[in-house]
Amino acid sequence: MVVGEVIGNIWATRKEDGLVGLKFLVVKPDHQASTPEASTFVAVDRIGAGVGDKVMVTRGSASSHLQEGPAIPIDALIIGIIDSVEVERGGANG
Amino acid sequence: MVVGEVIGNIWATRKEDGLVGLKFLVVKPDHQASTPEASTFVAVDRIGAGVGDKVMVTRGSASSHLQEGPAIPIDALIIGIIDSVEVERGGANG
Amino acid sequence: MVVGEVIGNIWATRKEDGLVGLKFLVVKPDHQASTPEASTFVAVDRIGAGVGDKVMVTRGSASSHLQEGPAIPIDALIIGIIDSVEVERGGANG
Amino acid sequence: MVVGEVIGNIWATRKEDGLVGLKFLVVKPDHQASTPEASTFVAVDRIGAGVGDKVMVTRGSASSHLQEGPAIPIDALIIGIIDSVEVERGGANG
Amino acid sequence: MVVGEVIGNIWATRKEDGLVGLKFLVVKPDHQASTPEASTFVAVDRIGAGVGDKVMVTRGSASSHLQEGPAIPIDALIIGIIDSVEVERGGANG
Repeated sequence: MVVGEVIGNIWATRKEDGLVGLKFLVVKPDHQASTPEASTFVAVDRIGAGVGDKVMVTRGSASSHLQEGPAIPIDALIIGIIDSVEVERGGANG
Repeated sequence: MVVGEVIGNIWATRKEDGLVGLKFLVVKPDHQASTPEASTFVAVDRIGAGVGDKVMVTRGSASSHLQEGPAIPIDALIIGIIDSVEVERGGANG
Repeated sequence: MVVGEVIGNIWATRKEDGLVGLKFLVVKPDHQASTPEASTFVAVDRIGAGVGDKVMVTRGSASSHLQEGPAIPIDALIIGIIDSVEVERGGANG
Repeated sequence: MVVGEVIGNIWATRKEDGLVGLKFLVVKPDHQASTPEASTFVAVDRIGAGVGDKVMVTRGSASSHLQEGPAIPIDALIIGIIDSVEVERGGANG
Repeated sequence: MVVGEVIGNIWATRKEDGLVGLKFLVVKPDHQASTPEASTFVAVDRIGAGVGDKVMVTRGSASSHLQEGPAIPIDALIIGIIDSVEVERGGANG
């Protein structure tokens, strides 16, 4: 999963069937520097995240493994709102 | 999902079974700068998108999770035509 | 899907079960410049593509969604031989 | 699979259903230099890994192929704690 | 699929259930130059590949589509030991 910050909302009235009622948020990943992966992307939110929240996001088809209903065509899902992160600095530099 | 603009059409008469009748569009992602991910790609459209539309696109195998019929071998699906995007500038720079 | 050109053939006698009889082709994606994604890769062909053909290729696990039989361990499938592409230049630069 | 080092922990109280009780760890891949893929990411651990361990991590939707229960929306799973790696130098440079 | 060379072995005693008995090899992709994708990775081998062999590798969740048993959490599988590759030079430069 990637860690990022919710920075916006996006709306689309005309959509694929099966996506009606889902909330779409714009997420900016917390990557170092300006890597390609630092590009913002759109994720579905079902847990009440909002702008400014730090979130964990599952990307790829696993994001469509919802606990109920059929698989839907989405490729990013906010799976958690982060309370805290504890990283070993020595480890990060080793 | 990535946000992009539809910039063209592509036609292929000889195709894999199961793909007959699908519309294929060329999409240019809205990424900053010239990252690898800024390369154009081809996506299936089933919601009536056309050249010039801003769209949300699901990439990877989740794009084949259509609501009816068997899974098909496609890796990009236009899932929404975007009405509006609202991004917090402070958040984007934080 | 990515657009590319078939540039060669590859043979492997010793293979995973379930892949016997498949044709493997070397594909060079049509990406701009020398991005990482411009690297050549190997794709399965079941529609009669050959060296010099412009093709559409599905990458990732969706490429194993064949219309018959069980899923097989392949991650790239040629899904169409391209007849024509029509891209709006204004759109591409916008 | 990628090889990396566990460098931290991450907590999220508010989560998608189906993820309660899972342990999330921060992993730094062992890639050469500062490639995009060298960015840290979050992986689920079910085998008792901890900070400082060298681990093998499966990324993408295959990480949700757990041996019991339904598929869950995660995209990285620690699948092994590495005992040793033996690499041919000649091979690596050839 | 990517083409690469087997350059080593990796061992992990403590692993996810379902992976016991699998052989894990270190593979170096044959990409041009030092692209991110040229990083080595770990793949499962079930066809008897060894150090020095040129192999085709399926990456992503399709690699877990084995012909028997349940899906397992792996993201790279050696699917063939390469006998020969024939690439059109003109095509590669065109």
